[in-house]
Amino acid sequence: MQIGLFHSVQWPEGSDQSDRYAQALTQACHADALGFDSVWLTEHHFSRHGIVSDSLMVLAHLAARTTTVRLGTAVSVLPLHHPLRFAEAAATVDQLSQGRLDLGIGRGYQPGEFRGFGVDIAEKHARFDEALDVIRTVWAADGPVSHSGRYFSFTDAAPQPRPYQQPHPPLWVATDSPDGLAACAAQDWGVLLPQGTSLTVTAGQMKRYVDALAGAGHGPERARVHLARAAYVAPTDEQAWADAEGPYKAFLGYADKLRRATDAGGESGRSPFDLDADLRSSALFGSPDTVIAGLAAIRELGIDRVMLFMHMGELPHHKIMSSLELFAREVLPVVREM
Amino acid sequence: MQIGLFHSVQWPEGSDQSDRYAQALTQACHADALGFDSVWLTEHHFSRHGIVSDSLMVLAHLAARTTTVRLGTAVSVLPLHHPLRFAEAAATVDQLSQGRLDLGIGRGYQPGEFRGFGVDIAEKHARFDEALDVIRTVWAADGPVSHSGRYFSFTDAAPQPRPYQQPHPPLWVATDSPDGLAACAAQDWGVLLPQGTSLTVTAGQMKRYVDALAGAGHGPERARVHLARAAYVAPTDEQAWADAEGPYKAFLGYADKLRRATDAGGESGRSPFDLDADLRSSALFGSPDTVIAGLAAIRELGIDRVMLFMHMGELPHHKIMSSLELFAREVLPVVREM
Repeated sequence: MQIGLFHSVQWPEGSDQSDRYAQALTQACHADALGFDSVWLTEHHFSRHGIVSDSLMVLAHLAARTTTVRLGTAVSVLPLHHPLRFAEAAATVDQLSQGRLDLGIGRGYQPGEFRGFGVDIAEKHARFDEALDVIRTVWAADGPVSHSGRYFSFTDAAPQPRPYQQPHPPLWVATDSPDGLAACAAQDWGVLLPQGTSLTVTAGQMKRYVDALAGAGHGPERARVHLARAAYVAPTDEQAWADAEGPYKAFLGYADKLRRATDAGGESGRSPFDLDADLRSSALFGSPDTVIAGLAAIRELGIDRVMLFMHMGELPHHKIMSSLELFAREVLPVVREM
Repeated sequence: MQIGLFHSVQWPEGSDQSDRYAQALTQACHADALGFDSVWLTEHHFSRHGIVSDSLMVLAHLAARTTTVRLGTAVSVLPLHHPLRFAEAAATVDQLSQGRLDLGIGRGYQPGEFRGFGVDIAEKHARFDEALDVIRTVWAADGPVSHSGRYFSFTDAAPQPRPYQQPHPPLWVATDSPDGLAACAAQDWGVLLPQGTSLTVTAGQMKRYVDALAGAGHGPERARVHLARAAYVAPTDEQAWADAEGPYKAFLGYADKLRRATDAGGESGRSPFDLDADLRSSALFGSPDTVIAGLAAIRELGIDRVMLFMHMGELPHHKIMSSLELFAREVLPVVREM
């Protein structure tokens, strides 16, 4: 399996933003040094849930401070971006990292983020589609591109720089709908699946993805999935749950509050988290052996890439660093061979 | 005097974008190591004139690769940015560099850049004003801000992270009009003056700025100006001009071609460059003694900050590195004391 670190920078009440950034970057650099395969950053706006708003920029910074990890967004909220600016920014990270960018994109779900940018959340699917179309078109073109669309119109744009990876960085889409998965299967985009869901839900998502691959004439070996999981490793299961359960529940609860906020039109976001899920079936909290068993169960579903969410708001920095180290020493060598 | 490196990444025909980025970043890091005070990046779009489109992101990368230089934009083209995204990005660089950002802003002048973003160049002053108003408002606010303007409308936006420098990074405005200078004098924003103008023109700009300061009740000692100058140092004047004149003229000619391109409405940009200026009165090309004399003449005008533009498209990397080293060894210790 390939193992990534999935990171947001939360800003709990009473904490200092500069400290929070410094700790998160230290953790990401430590994951690189310990042999993790990738670091993925969320994008959030206007709340304590995540103060990485320009995730591509933070990846550009990490490109200078890390050596081998792939650098990913999980996800960039495409309906809130200008697609030309986004194409420029993504290509710049790709240049600065010499081709280490994985570009994860999604539609977003927090009404407050859309309201804060003055974008109607009801338009998120149409905006996503148009933005992705523009990005793919300008990266495929040899010269200037003009476009007259519903949300964007422009003349003779040739965004620079070009991506380092050709034809463009790998695309990963956060989706689990039949239509979304069919597009991924047809276009050879990877699929990002969320944390906070039970293994049963994940199995259903994989089933739909394999069906979509079959619909596009591909076998299940073509699947390219990255699954996010909350994770925390301690010497014993008891200690792991005692340390991590409270902070993770606080994180999930706050995320759900932001999701339930409605926009002016009354539409509320669909949560990527399943709050009814038994945490014991979704979170990889426990001793090294327990976490190895949890990852083996994920591998059984045909998933060979997992990104670990360890940076739960109220969990102290030194405990996250210890968890990273214990994971790297006891778990990583085993799950690599799965 | 304080001396900065003023940098774009040009992309001459036949050159490779990745090589160009790598060389430019090496030069910027070298300037940091050699004791320069700052590195400033341009923002350009859609042409070979400059392939740094996301300049704040490249500064975030340089924040990890440099130790003491201030990191500046010269300039960010504000009418082409969403002000909330811009506030987020600038604050993120400021966090990642622990307060080394200098935020230079301007209105832009290349019709192709406006057309490429679908923005009417005739709106550039109104867009600049509204964007700057939004940025200042959100940085001054303790909580969420709503705004209903001509170009942007949004509800409850509280951009995160907050800037590291409080209340915000120093602002520098590219302007030489009486109104623009009056705003700088009143608000205590710095002034950016362009390269490519003769000393006589620069003296006139300084005169207007001192008048503007007087109008705001300040003496000339309050002036805060950064002047850009093309620069190239070689052992002799002859060698300096032989190496640099051709590449600089090619750069100026291409910039003028982009400026003269008209948008659909027939408006063409006003060039920041004065092509009629005698290069010998604007460019700091020469031996160390000649360049010291040129900087002394600038100092006489009341200007104590100069950013040097050495990265002229066709000038080879090794010559730029040599010029940087010779400048740092022979010129910098002298002009520091001026």
